[in-house]
Formats: sequence, structure tokens, C-alpha cells
Amino acid sequence: TNYQAGDYSSPLVTVDVAIFTLIEGQLHVLLVQRGNHPAQGRWALPGGFIDTDSDLDLSEAAGRKLHEKTGVNAPYLEQVCTAGDARRDPRGWSVTVLYMALMAHAPTAEFVETVTDARWWPLSSAQQQHLAFDHNHLLEAARQRLSSKTAYTVLPIHTLDEPFTLTQLQQAFEEVLGAPLEKKSFRRRILSADILEESGEAPPPGGRGRPAALFRPKAGLEDHAFVRVVGEGR
Amino acid sequence: TNYQAGDYSSPLVTVDVAIFTLIEGQLHVLLVQRGNHPAQGRWALPGGFIDTDSDLDLSEAAGRKLHEKTGVNAPYLEQVCTAGDARRDPRGWSVTVLYMALMAHAPTAEFVETVTDARWWPLSSAQQQHLAFDHNHLLEAARQRLSSKTAYTVLPIHTLDEPFTLTQLQQAFEEVLGAPLEKKSFRRRILSADILEESGEAPPPGGRGRPAALFRPKAGLEDHAFVRVVGEGR
Repeated sequence: TNYQAGDYSSPLVTVDVAIFTLIEGQLHVLLVQRGNHPAQGRWALPGGFIDTDSDLDLSEAAGRKLHEKTGVNAPYLEQVCTAGDARRDPRGWSVTVLYMALMAHAPTAEFVETVTDARWWPLSSAQQQHLAFDHNHLLEAARQRLSSKTAYTVLPIHTLDEPFTLTQLQQAFEEVLGAPLEKKSFRRRILSADILEESGEAPPPGGRGRPAALFRPKAGLEDHAFVRVVGEGR
Repeated sequence: TNYQAGDYSSPLVTVDVAIFTLIEGQLHVLLVQRGNHPAQGRWALPGGFIDTDSDLDLSEAAGRKLHEKTGVNAPYLEQVCTAGDARRDPRGWSVTVLYMALMAHAPTAEFVETVTDARWWPLSSAQQQHLAFDHNHLLEAARQRLSSKTAYTVLPIHTLDEPFTLTQLQQAFEEVLGAPLEKKSFRRRILSADILEESGEAPPPGGRGRPAALFRPKAGLEDHAFVRVVGEGR
């Protein structure tokens, strides 16, 4: 009476990926337009079925599906949550494991598998779409994780072209957090975290007053480096 | 060329549950001894396969498996993370969704399905066991979530017999957090959160000095009520 694979009707298992970036200072998310049923023609988070013959684990499957459907490679993927029930997919009981990342803008590929288009959408426009399956809910879950995570990581630094001013950096954090930051406190925390170095390049000419200093991340800065930009603490 | 269920070899899908409680002030976790292969005879977190015919969603499946295997009903279940790869289960590519809860001590049932025993283990003893599959890792993930969550919820209050003293309450928080708390700060935060009421009962006789006041949770206190007992903030 021991279990054998095939004894049970197993749920479908997919991975989905919410990739965020900043384009001209505005938060964007990467969506694909579905080429196949169900939800053909709808926009969706890139994702798809686990390939039990080739994928070693969930995170690898997520990276593979992202690349196959958009041409984009994520520098890291963070697991957000897992949704699973009898109704979210018309093909049957379905489980999806959601991953997310915030990364520098990368172009999408022209040829992609099983989708008719892959495009960076301004987040607010994406949220107003009727996305496939429960992807509006998944996108909201990923966006909340991104905001809460941004309160204590340096992730937004990697969305900026170098070199950047502290004002540009603060604007990037504010856009990803979805909330304003107090300038003096932000600068004190960022500078005391010792993660930036002055670029040494001359600031662009023009403007009034003292020109803003230009910075870039210190060599070897880890994505998961810790800097608390909001809330209590130093 | 549209997808049909059965076209792909789908991973096995299970749910596992880490249920914590305090027994005589010490953190315990609920484990079952496996009656079947694989890992027959090993202790494991209670869990099992999704039943796609009867389970409506992942959380319901987790509650059902917990009850079937231990007789215990959890008042809530929080999703912790999902593990999935080609090697964690000898039966094949396997995904498990991990849930956790902290609750008042409840007795285990004498008759349970597919397990030979269900027992509350002191956490440190459980961690020293070689548990089935990757359950040592899952238990560690659940324990970390419990600790971080306890920093800002009232959950440990529900593990105590009423009425309790503030010292007993602080000890419960410290055991679940796995870290000491500063007495004066803890009392200020708990009392200013306005979640306790004096029980009105006479404290036990004896002892020196002023007897400690006895408290219980205010009626209607929500499990997810917010009180920050450690770190910055008021």
C-alpha cells in the first residue's frame, strides 16, 4: 500500500515571475501576451510548467521560463508566495510558485516561446489590465514584497545608470517603495552604510549653486547588502 | 498544440505543517512518525498529498492533513515557503508548501492515519533528530519565521493559561523569540498596546513583596493584533 507516482491526481505545477525595473524613473513590470489557450491574448506574468526532466529546482525553472518567454535573465530570484486551488486555472487544480526580482532595465527578445509579445509595462498600467488567471493578485503580492524589501536592501541602486546623484538615488528608492523619504535621513543612512563611492567624474555643467556629487556603488557591493532607509533605527 | 493535463510529467505536490506550542514554558513542535515508505519510522512534520477531488486550496489541504495525522486543529495557518526539486523525495520531482502556526497546547489523537505516532517534541530535541526528507530545513525555516513574526504580533499570548502575570507573558515571548527582552521596555509596550485586562482574581498567597497582578487578553483580541516587542519603535 505504499505510494507510487500516478496513484494520485496531482495538481498542475507552474512558476511565475514578476520582474520589476525603473525606466526613466518609473517602476515597470515585465509582462507577456499569451499565445495559447487558456487566456489566449491576455497579458500575464512570464512563467510556465516545471520540466521534471531538466529543471533541478523551482528557482531554476523560474529563471528558465523567464528567459524562454522574454529573453531576459534575472540576476537573482526571490520566492514570494505560492498560490494553489481548484479554480485558478481552467485546466484543473493548479499550484504556482511566485518569484520576483528588481533589476536594471534589459531589452526583451524579439523571438519568444508560446507568447506573442513581451513588454515592460508601467506598473500602474499593468495593474489596470485584466491579467490572465490570478495574475493581478500575484502582481500585487510581488509589489508588496518589493516595497517592504526595499526598506532594508540596496536593490534600487542596481536600477540606476552610473554615475548618479544622491537625489536620483533617493527618487529610485521612493519609486520602488511607493512612498516619499525624508531627504536628510535618507542621505545619512546611505552614506553611513558605506556602500557608495564618489565617481570622480565632473558633474554636468550649468545649473545654479554647488553641483551635485556623482556616485556609483562600491566594487563588490552585494545585492543583499543591508541598509535601512525607512522606519526606526540607524 | 494546446496544453492538456497529462501532457507533462507533473511534480508531486504536498503540504507540510510546523505547529509550535509552549508546554511548561518550553517551545515544542508537533511531529509524526511515518508509518509508510519512504523514510518509514522517521519523524517528520505532519503533511501529505493534495487531494484534488476534495481540497479547495493549499491552506485547506494543510489543515486537513494536520488533523488527519495528529488530531490537532490549527486556529490559523501561515504560509512560510515552498521547497521543490528533483532530489528531496525519492518518489520523484516533488514540491511541498510549508505552513506554520503557534497555538495553545492541544492533545494529539490516539488514532491517526498513515503514522505510527504523533507527539509534541521539545524544539531542540526535534532539531537534533534526522527528520524525514528535507524536514530539518523546513523546520528551521518555520522556526525563523516564528521568531521574526513574534517581534510584532501577540501570538505568544494565546499559548498561556489564563490568568497570567506579566513575567509569565514575557517568558513566553522570550521562549518563542529565542532571545531575552528588556523587562521595562516589554511591559511598557504590552501595556500601551491595550490588549490585556486585569483578571480581577486574587493572586496566589505567599511570596514576599507586592503580589504580581494577573492578566488575560481583552475580549475580541485578534491573533494578528500588532505589538512590537523588540527593536526600535514605541
